Amino acid sequence: MGNTFGQLFRVTTFGESHGGGVGVVIDGCPANIELSEAEIQRELDRRRPGQSKITTQRKEEDQCEILSGVFEGKTLGTPIAVLVRNKDARPEDYSEIAEKFRPSHADFTYEAKYGIRNWQGGGRASARETIGRVAAGAVAKKILSVLYAEFEIVAYVAQIHEVAAKINRSAVKAKDIEKNIVRCPDATAAKKMVSLIEQVRGQGDSVGGVIECLVRGIPPGIGEPVFDKLEADLAKAMLSIPATKGFEIGSGFAATRMRGSQHNDPFEMRGGKIRAATNNSGGVQGGISNGEEIYFRVAFKPTATIGHEQKTVTSSRQQTRLGARGRHDPCVLPRAVPIVEAMAALVLGDHALRQRATKIADRGLRIAER
Amino acid sequence: MGNTFGQLFRVTTFGESHGGGVGVVIDGCPANIELSEAEIQRELDRRRPGQSKITTQRKEEDQCEILSGVFEGKTLGTPIAVLVRNKDARPEDYSEIAEKFRPSHADFTYEAKYGIRNWQGGGRASARETIGRVAAGAVAKKILSVLYAEFEIVAYVAQIHEVAAKINRSAVKAKDIEKNIVRCPDATAAKKMVSLIEQVRGQGDSVGGVIECLVRGIPPGIGEPVFDKLEADLAKAMLSIPATKGFEIGSGFAATRMRGSQHNDPFEMRGGKIRAATNNSGGVQGGISNGEEIYFRVAFKPTATIGHEQKTVTSSRQQTRLGARGRHDPCVLPRAVPIVEAMAALVLGDHALRQRATKIADRGLRIAER
Amino acid sequence: MGNTFGQLFRVTTFGESHGGGVGVVIDGCPANIELSEAEIQRELDRRRPGQSKITTQRKEEDQCEILSGVFEGKTLGTPIAVLVRNKDARPEDYSEIAEKFRPSHADFTYEAKYGIRNWQGGGRASARETIGRVAAGAVAKKILSVLYAEFEIVAYVAQIHEVAAKINRSAVKAKDIEKNIVRCPDATAAKKMVSLIEQVRGQGDSVGGVIECLVRGIPPGIGEPVFDKLEADLAKAMLSIPATKGFEIGSGFAATRMRGSQHNDPFEMRGGKIRAATNNSGGVQGGISNGEEIYFRVAFKPTATIGHEQKTVTSSRQQTRLGARGRHDPCVLPRAVPIVEAMAALVLGDHALRQRATKIADRGLRIAER
Amino acid sequence: MGNTFGQLFRVTTFGESHGGGVGVVIDGCPANIELSEAEIQRELDRRRPGQSKITTQRKEEDQCEILSGVFEGKTLGTPIAVLVRNKDARPEDYSEIAEKFRPSHADFTYEAKYGIRNWQGGGRASARETIGRVAAGAVAKKILSVLYAEFEIVAYVAQIHEVAAKINRSAVKAKDIEKNIVRCPDATAAKKMVSLIEQVRGQGDSVGGVIECLVRGIPPGIGEPVFDKLEADLAKAMLSIPATKGFEIGSGFAATRMRGSQHNDPFEMRGGKIRAATNNSGGVQGGISNGEEIYFRVAFKPTATIGHEQKTVTSSRQQTRLGARGRHDPCVLPRAVPIVEAMAALVLGDHALRQRATKIADRGLRIAER
Repeated sequence: MGNTFGQLFRVTTFGESHGGGVGVVIDGCPANIELSEAEIQRELDRRRPGQSKITTQRKEEDQCEILSGVFEGKTLGTPIAVLVRNKDARPEDYSEIAEKFRPSHADFTYEAKYGIRNWQGGGRASARETIGRVAAGAVAKKILSVLYAEFEIVAYVAQIHEVAAKINRSAVKAKDIEKNIVRCPDATAAKKMVSLIEQVRGQGDSVGGVIECLVRGIPPGIGEPVFDKLEADLAKAMLSIPATKGFEIGSGFAATRMRGSQHNDPFEMRGGKIRAATNNSGGVQGGISNGEEIYFRVAFKPTATIGHEQKTVTSSRQQTRLGARGRHDPCVLPRAVPIVEAMAALVLGDHALRQRATKIADRGLRIAER
Repeated sequence: MGNTFGQLFRVTTFGESHGGGVGVVIDGCPANIELSEAEIQRELDRRRPGQSKITTQRKEEDQCEILSGVFEGKTLGTPIAVLVRNKDARPEDYSEIAEKFRPSHADFTYEAKYGIRNWQGGGRASARETIGRVAAGAVAKKILSVLYAEFEIVAYVAQIHEVAAKINRSAVKAKDIEKNIVRCPDATAAKKMVSLIEQVRGQGDSVGGVIECLVRGIPPGIGEPVFDKLEADLAKAMLSIPATKGFEIGSGFAATRMRGSQHNDPFEMRGGKIRAATNNSGGVQGGISNGEEIYFRVAFKPTATIGHEQKTVTSSRQQTRLGARGRHDPCVLPRAVPIVEAMAALVLGDHALRQRATKIADRGLRIAER
Repeated sequence: MGNTFGQLFRVTTFGESHGGGVGVVIDGCPANIELSEAEIQRELDRRRPGQSKITTQRKEEDQCEILSGVFEGKTLGTPIAVLVRNKDARPEDYSEIAEKFRPSHADFTYEAKYGIRNWQGGGRASARETIGRVAAGAVAKKILSVLYAEFEIVAYVAQIHEVAAKINRSAVKAKDIEKNIVRCPDATAAKKMVSLIEQVRGQGDSVGGVIECLVRGIPPGIGEPVFDKLEADLAKAMLSIPATKGFEIGSGFAATRMRGSQHNDPFEMRGGKIRAATNNSGGVQGGISNGEEIYFRVAFKPTATIGHEQKTVTSSRQQTRLGARGRHDPCVLPRAVPIVEAMAALVLGDHALRQRATKIADRGLRIAER
Repeated sequence: MGNTFGQLFRVTTFGESHGGGVGVVIDGCPANIELSEAEIQRELDRRRPGQSKITTQRKEEDQCEILSGVFEGKTLGTPIAVLVRNKDARPEDYSEIAEKFRPSHADFTYEAKYGIRNWQGGGRASARETIGRVAAGAVAKKILSVLYAEFEIVAYVAQIHEVAAKINRSAVKAKDIEKNIVRCPDATAAKKMVSLIEQVRGQGDSVGGVIECLVRGIPPGIGEPVFDKLEADLAKAMLSIPATKGFEIGSGFAATRMRGSQHNDPFEMRGGKIRAATNNSGGVQGGISNGEEIYFRVAFKPTATIGHEQKTVTSSRQQTRLGARGRHDPCVLPRAVPIVEAMAALVLGDHALRQRATKIADRGLRIAER
């Protein structure tokens, strides 16, 4: 259970790291939207292993095939199924983890839950599962671009271990993100991050960090006010990404040390529109977008797979040690940037459709049309 | 939309701050569980305004009535509807906010979304909506106690503005929480917090802080591994509470500054069970409980209603100023403690039922039964 | 579980025949639609017991109260909760059925499922549960009237036992239905039906029959093509009404004795529109409306409560006899007409919102706008 | 939207008749259940075109591949994705229907809904979509067999046009169904049916009929009492199958001509169990199984594709004629038998899991365990 995300734009992923393949079925995509495999592939390539010297050196091409839902280059309104075949399987690598629970991985909890697990390379808990998310996110971005002329979603690495980037959020441009392999718009910090990751890899260790994400061009009125608040669905989306430990929107945890008189965002008229003078709210008030930039931050733990021997137990309850493991990402953040974007797009695409469904009667203020 | 939470234990809240009342319909509660209005009332009383000198001085009795689903003191398996009538309505208080958007409230976004809003006291965005959540949480706690002998959920205030409590998590007991009006188990910090809140109130200002929550007695195997990870659903639940800005589980944002070799939780045999030697994971690995204590932290912003005049605009797009407002909570955290507990109980109650649904076939390891 | 109906226009009913009351929470109603208690009450009065000499003589006023979601006569976009208090409770009447399972009632199956049941008057299985459906249906009708200028939903009794009405579907007008107490537009048949019902009541027996329902003014394009076909959701809606045993749409079971060359509905241009020349399809093709009148028929069994002694067993597994029971409807169909209409409105209201959600991109044919 | 079926055992189908393939993702399947491609293939072969002289002569092998969710012959608890590639594509056959709406097909309604359609062979409205359902049904049957020792589901053709089989329901055995190519357990009627279908095909025409389905071995207590009644979900499931026009359970439409005193099913003690002496209820009372055989009937219209020229219009709104079409099934019923079984299995598998989820507390009667 739990492999479906979204209410109207509904995404169901499937697949283990080893086996026939991984993929996604997207239900609820509007019809008549141009869509090609190339557009999906572009996003998958940003997520792909082996793309730079600071990622895992496993080679996976992750070539996608659209199985259904697209006809003569346009969406049909029917389910879009996307499949990526698995390759590069080396099951012999996994004989040790068939028996031993890797610390801070999902081996033990899967075994506890299901009484069985595919121990070849992480199975369903493998990061390969996110391929389906990134493919679906590419489709969601298309819809959002059709709906909102100024829509843009930009995620980037804001911090790796102790190296924090200096970033002026409003000046960040999407094209800046891909200028370096760590996907950080602060070039100076980016260099330090790359060095750090290489150094950590050399030590057989790993590091975590923070990804920040900006969403622009969302009009006021998107989101639902109680349980499905925009920030609530974003939080769920982000904490569903492997290796995440925290989420904050707008002022976030820093808000806990502010006073109301500092924190409140006064309204003002600007450019003929009702605008917030400051944006501690992070673009969302009461669960609904207010037309300002939506921004949030996601905490990633250091990769659990490391090149050190570790204490653990076997599935037959014997204390043992797990040997050092290779070919891992010493830091998942550069490859997680497109995943964060994809999950944000899934949330916003879904909420955009939800808002369309119930906008019917005549409106006094018509703010949403601004 | 979005007023329902949960897949199997499904909770739908209704009601505005002014109007007939607020409440909840709980669908999916197992039958034959003892339940009384008194048990629900006990939790509602912890959330009630006017309960101490540091909360709002509005008097609301919030007396609950179970309308359905309970017969001769036991649940029927049918929907449990709980109603709390509204009282103490003083609509004349609200004439100003009928016209002006309160900064960092949901007035503007509701207007943008719906083209209409109940401007009497916050309407649906009022904290009164959480009455339904707390009532449902009381029922979820009952179910969890029936299912898991050692189940316990304990939330408390860990920080108010700059005052951070010193807390040994494993030593915190549920009964300690109610020993002071700020609901902080560190008596020394609690005193400082109370003073601070009183001082801030005197200044017509407000403060935020952090609530920490512990969940004990959950066996391994609860949670779903992909989108409905336990931490993802907890994050959504917490960010759906009014005034929240962040969530972190286990090591949280601190994990971003750790190395994998420090952060990983080695497994060991302890008391005949497979246990994690440390708990940076916060009791959850790959979205599924590992049997350790689940703990997480929630960031609350300072109350948006303050006793200062503020800049804003009217619904007819005129710049204006909003007068100082009274009778507010200078700090929502003491009253938010039972809300955090309730939302955590809703998530865990739902996942507990989900796990029961699919546990069928013979299990090799039978860890879950430990 | 299972007390919620609909994807976007979501209706959750609650309540037993005895206890605090029955009602409904409607989530997903668009904002700014005029709505009053009087409009809901009008539909409830058509369903009310004691309304004529051929219904049960129990007196129930079924006065509704809107608890939330409406402000100054308009919907807020927030959940609309409607409550009807229970009255006329005479629990002493029910001492016998506390012990004995009434044949063809839900007493035994509830006990089997839940291990407990509210034996006072049918509990949750009572027809009182349909009050919430009728209230919600009144709201759905409002939405559909706002969306589709020519929308109309007309149900009527087409057959009682062996008495079948002669009806020219296209000539049936909504106002004709309420002209007689049996709600049959064929006046001659109606008289026979009334006589039959009175005679059957005199014999302590009961009869069933068929309700037919017409839905007009639905444009082409409403419905989803695979599992949520319009006819599939209508079938579910109808079979969820107590005492129903069958559903057929368009040609229905008669289609099984036709040939394709007779049954197919040729297309033609008529009034500048693409129209079906015949309507064996019943207004739906491939799960989606084609712009023609939607019509379907629902089979109701004879009321299970009768004035005869019957063989049965006790909950302690003893063979016994159940005494004759009074105050029942000898035929539920006249009061079921508004319930059929309500359920049809819930299905169509929900699908209308779903269609709005995904209509985005430019359309070649633009048939839907015709 | 609407491509997912079920609450806990959730099935999402995808695919058009032409394109990469068709298939299904099954979420919510319990772990550790033995499952092979061969078991799924066996059911697909019963649905396959070209299997006998009375079905379409198109050759489709419909070879299935399990992409995920199964490991070393057992289910993992993760999504099971099954893919069947499309073959035998002859798009040139379809140039005429690219322009013309086939009568009583979904061409026009898809165009009205989406403004685009895959006109190659029916696209998403093709019966190929049911491949995913049959594959999922095979999995659901496995689960039900694990849960209920005596579980059995048997569907068969009960009527073709005017030829009605004589069937003693309680004597029908699963193995009898496959003894003739029309899948009718009455051998005499079967011969007439085969002759009739061959004759009708010779005339370029088509016929419909009735499929009856029996479900045995379901204990009392399965089903939900209000909207998700077992009969309601079965009705939806059946009306979601292409070409269906009606559904009836137990006494069905015949109940409308019975009296309560005839129709009621008295309870009695039999074999130490509480049993119904008759079974007009069809195994379901108040939406919940009572332990008796569940049986229902489904009406299928004659195939819409016929070998006659027909009147219709083009997508550019011109009156025209559609030429005679070949290679169709003159009668869909023999191939629809496994589809009816599959949909019934999906409903019962889902409800079986739902019942497990909420059975918790101690039960007085413990009927369900009998």
